[in-house]
Amino acid sequence: MAATSDWKAIGAQKKQSILDKIPPEWRLPAETLAAAHEDAEIDVTGIPRECGILTADEITITESYDATALLAKLAAGGYTSLAVTTAFCKRAAIANQLTNCLTETFFDEALERAKYLDEYLAANKKTVGPLHGLPISIKDSFNYIGQETTLGFVSFVGGKTVAKEHSALVKMLLDLGAVLYIKSNIPQTLMTADSENHVFGRTLNPHKLTLTAGGSSGGEGAVVGIRAAVLGVGTDVGGSIRVPALCCGTYGFRPSASRIPYGGQGSPGRAGSPGVLAAAGPLATSFRDVRLFMETVLGQQPWKYDHTVLHAPWRQLSSSAPKILTIGLLPIDPAFPIHPPMRRALDSAISKLKAAGHTIVPLGYVPSIAVANREIAEYYSLDPIITPFKNIEASGEPQIRSVAESPFLSKRLGKLDMDDLYTLNATRTQCMAAWHKIWTTTGIDVILGPVCETTAMPHDTFGNTPYTTLYNYLDYPSLVIPHLKADKEIDVGDGFISYKGYNAEKTHGAPTGVQVAARPQFDEELLDAAEIISEVLKA
Amino acid sequence: MAATSDWKAIGAQKKQSILDKIPPEWRLPAETLAAAHEDAEIDVTGIPRECGILTADEITITESYDATALLAKLAAGGYTSLAVTTAFCKRAAIANQLTNCLTETFFDEALERAKYLDEYLAANKKTVGPLHGLPISIKDSFNYIGQETTLGFVSFVGGKTVAKEHSALVKMLLDLGAVLYIKSNIPQTLMTADSENHVFGRTLNPHKLTLTAGGSSGGEGAVVGIRAAVLGVGTDVGGSIRVPALCCGTYGFRPSASRIPYGGQGSPGRAGSPGVLAAAGPLATSFRDVRLFMETVLGQQPWKYDHTVLHAPWRQLSSSAPKILTIGLLPIDPAFPIHPPMRRALDSAISKLKAAGHTIVPLGYVPSIAVANREIAEYYSLDPIITPFKNIEASGEPQIRSVAESPFLSKRLGKLDMDDLYTLNATRTQCMAAWHKIWTTTGIDVILGPVCETTAMPHDTFGNTPYTTLYNYLDYPSLVIPHLKADKEIDVGDGFISYKGYNAEKTHGAPTGVQVAARPQFDEELLDAAEIISEVLKA
Repeated sequence: MAATSDWKAIGAQKKQSILDKIPPEWRLPAETLAAAHEDAEIDVTGIPRECGILTADEITITESYDATALLAKLAAGGYTSLAVTTAFCKRAAIANQLTNCLTETFFDEALERAKYLDEYLAANKKTVGPLHGLPISIKDSFNYIGQETTLGFVSFVGGKTVAKEHSALVKMLLDLGAVLYIKSNIPQTLMTADSENHVFGRTLNPHKLTLTAGGSSGGEGAVVGIRAAVLGVGTDVGGSIRVPALCCGTYGFRPSASRIPYGGQGSPGRAGSPGVLAAAGPLATSFRDVRLFMETVLGQQPWKYDHTVLHAPWRQLSSSAPKILTIGLLPIDPAFPIHPPMRRALDSAISKLKAAGHTIVPLGYVPSIAVANREIAEYYSLDPIITPFKNIEASGEPQIRSVAESPFLSKRLGKLDMDDLYTLNATRTQCMAAWHKIWTTTGIDVILGPVCETTAMPHDTFGNTPYTTLYNYLDYPSLVIPHLKADKEIDVGDGFISYKGYNAEKTHGAPTGVQVAARPQFDEELLDAAEIISEVLKA
Repeated sequence: MAATSDWKAIGAQKKQSILDKIPPEWRLPAETLAAAHEDAEIDVTGIPRECGILTADEITITESYDATALLAKLAAGGYTSLAVTTAFCKRAAIANQLTNCLTETFFDEALERAKYLDEYLAANKKTVGPLHGLPISIKDSFNYIGQETTLGFVSFVGGKTVAKEHSALVKMLLDLGAVLYIKSNIPQTLMTADSENHVFGRTLNPHKLTLTAGGSSGGEGAVVGIRAAVLGVGTDVGGSIRVPALCCGTYGFRPSASRIPYGGQGSPGRAGSPGVLAAAGPLATSFRDVRLFMETVLGQQPWKYDHTVLHAPWRQLSSSAPKILTIGLLPIDPAFPIHPPMRRALDSAISKLKAAGHTIVPLGYVPSIAVANREIAEYYSLDPIITPFKNIEASGEPQIRSVAESPFLSKRLGKLDMDDLYTLNATRTQCMAAWHKIWTTTGIDVILGPVCETTAMPHDTFGNTPYTTLYNYLDYPSLVIPHLKADKEIDVGDGFISYKGYNAEKTHGAPTGVQVAARPQFDEELLDAAEIISEVLKA
């Protein structure tokens, strides 16, 4: 273990070793670098296109396709995987210099694999699998053989977390033909909406560097938000896919627990938690790529890779014809009023959906969202030895601000006993049963509501996420659909409600969105409905 | 609450109230009753046929059909539901007098419902549902409106457990057209293989009254074993469906957890347990009735009735053609040698399966069965206030012998803390992962092994059930297939191994069987394989 005085040096050295791997010709000019910092109120999403590092083809590859379209090109030989992988490696290197979104990079290995895939396609006249040649980004928590899984803990640096086995999902993606090339940044402990740690520093929002990229899959949000990948994989136990998706303007899907392989990841916490299950899921630039991810992974029989995956094949629902939806509208909890830009995004969605002929059913009484949010914080706080804090303390590094001020941990952190757990579980079951009654009595297809009270906030001020934790508490599959952007001219509020920390000027330009959710293992029904909703919102 | 001196009277009064509901013409002669007691080494399965209470038609109805065949008759109008329900009510009354297998009876209500169903069929020329008119027996733990769910606790008698709502599964079975008429006996606490309590007394094995009918669904085992029902529903968190099925010579299936609605039952324990999940499932007189139960319940979208049910529709597997199975053979744990009759049943099954061309793969190393058995006892022991014991103490009644001597509870009963639970969960996950590797590396279709060390034992000596708890620990769907009977002339042992409590003379005549199991949510694959195995064993 490092002496406590060493933690800064260890972190800095690790971070530098990643930056050092960027080839000189992929490096941004000094003045661009100097301008890209967490106090710079700038949108950097255009820089990859403008910086001169990418060729015209590489700009087209990274900006003009989603994963579905790129895969079609790749399979047809329209692009080689080498060309596509090169383009995304370069863009990822640029993105990292601008937003600090990456932890590990393995560009050389990725390019080697791309060459192999190209040769395979040429020799066999068929693809390795449905993800043939596509670069996919993964959150740092996934193990990739030969790479460290430090999770941003200084105490995890130094070789002991170098993966000897791929995570189950990583192995699957490779078997499906994907190319992996980067791992993305996360917050210390993975339990905040600010992806900052003392190894890699803070991930910035590509739409405005002064804002958070969200967390815990904040690096992934930035990567997909700046199109350094068109498909990324995060994990979510309280909003960790959906908050970054919201903040960075991407689609983000938390599937029902245990449908996508979660096994074989590094963890900031302790094995054996009896708490709420985390889920892995995609961040994407198009709705159809969310479906692509789910159908491709489920089509590969993930239960062969991971014993924790439900043996529940993806169900192709029979009704493919457009249909009229009955959409339950989640009431806003008075304890958590949504900020004007989020209100406008939601109102716009409601208007458009009504105009398109869908039925909006405001749900009257629902079990308290605030109580669910409080209860889930207790679940996060069960570990009596508070392992994530031990992992911080092991190097002498301090807690990051968003951990020290976390709204996600109970005051009884580490002190809850078996009696408390019985009570928590019984309360949760009652809540699930009450919600179940709402579904069966109202006949709604999905629930529409906000993603969070706010979209991207200035660093370290995001706070709580009651509208995402609700669905972790209920184990509801839930999808963020990007919709509109915060606008300081319009989103001024009504003057009556005080929105905690909201500043129209500071938030201006941040993406906004809405969230749709369904019952556990109704992922298929959710995506069918969300496809319709997504089309309506785009129209 | 009753004074402690009253518990015997309260129990006796409750039991008498049930017996009083038997119409005089359904009562057995005094000499038959006098001969039917727990020290009588007699087989009573023939008495319903011989006692003169059932008409020839009623004997045919109750003895010549399984549920599948009866349903066909009922739907075609070959029998009225009234005739069938009358036959099974009478047989249940007889069975209860012989084996003490029932808790609640509601014959009048059942006959009224049967009449309604007959009228419905006559008027509409169609059935109410796929279970139209079929009497189904349920374990006492299921709530049925208007009936008590005492679970054999004296403290639960007196009106406070009268159900105001049906259990989710009860509601489903009624919606599917079934007729419910009886609830069946269980052990105090539901945690032993001896279905005895101080309200209803002890259930006796219809094949030999000196032997246990098994537990905790022991009443259900006796009911189906004596054909007082051709289809019954039990619950299983350690073998509670499978042990009675074994002891009473029926099929018994513990599905994967959360596939059959479990919600809305009475419980001896406390809500909110973070331990192993219990499952509801069928006891049946034929293999195809097990399939009938699963397909019918899953076909009714049980997730509409119970929020805890997985949204995983029954999968109709494509390969309906006979196929050659690769069957993994579970090694016998040296700590739990199986008694000669069980050995013979297993050896016979292996020989027949080999002769039929199937491949038997002895599994070499498997994670310790003894450790799994020890670990699950810890899960059973988590509740810090030991609610089942509180429910015993509340009336002043003593523990029954098999509870007092229970091998299913940890020495740390009520003393395990959160730290222990993390460790338990982590160990369990490791065990599941190790087993997962066995499946993926060997390519086996199912696992074949013993149900228990022993078949039905003299009362209060059954003890532990490591070969059933294993599959609760792993959440493997597991089916008991009845096969052969204990024979004192053959099952004499080899003279080298001492079988705890085995006495060839005493066990003579008890049914034996084997157990097949598959991975979680592979219920469909398991039944497809078990159908083949079941046919081979019958041949």
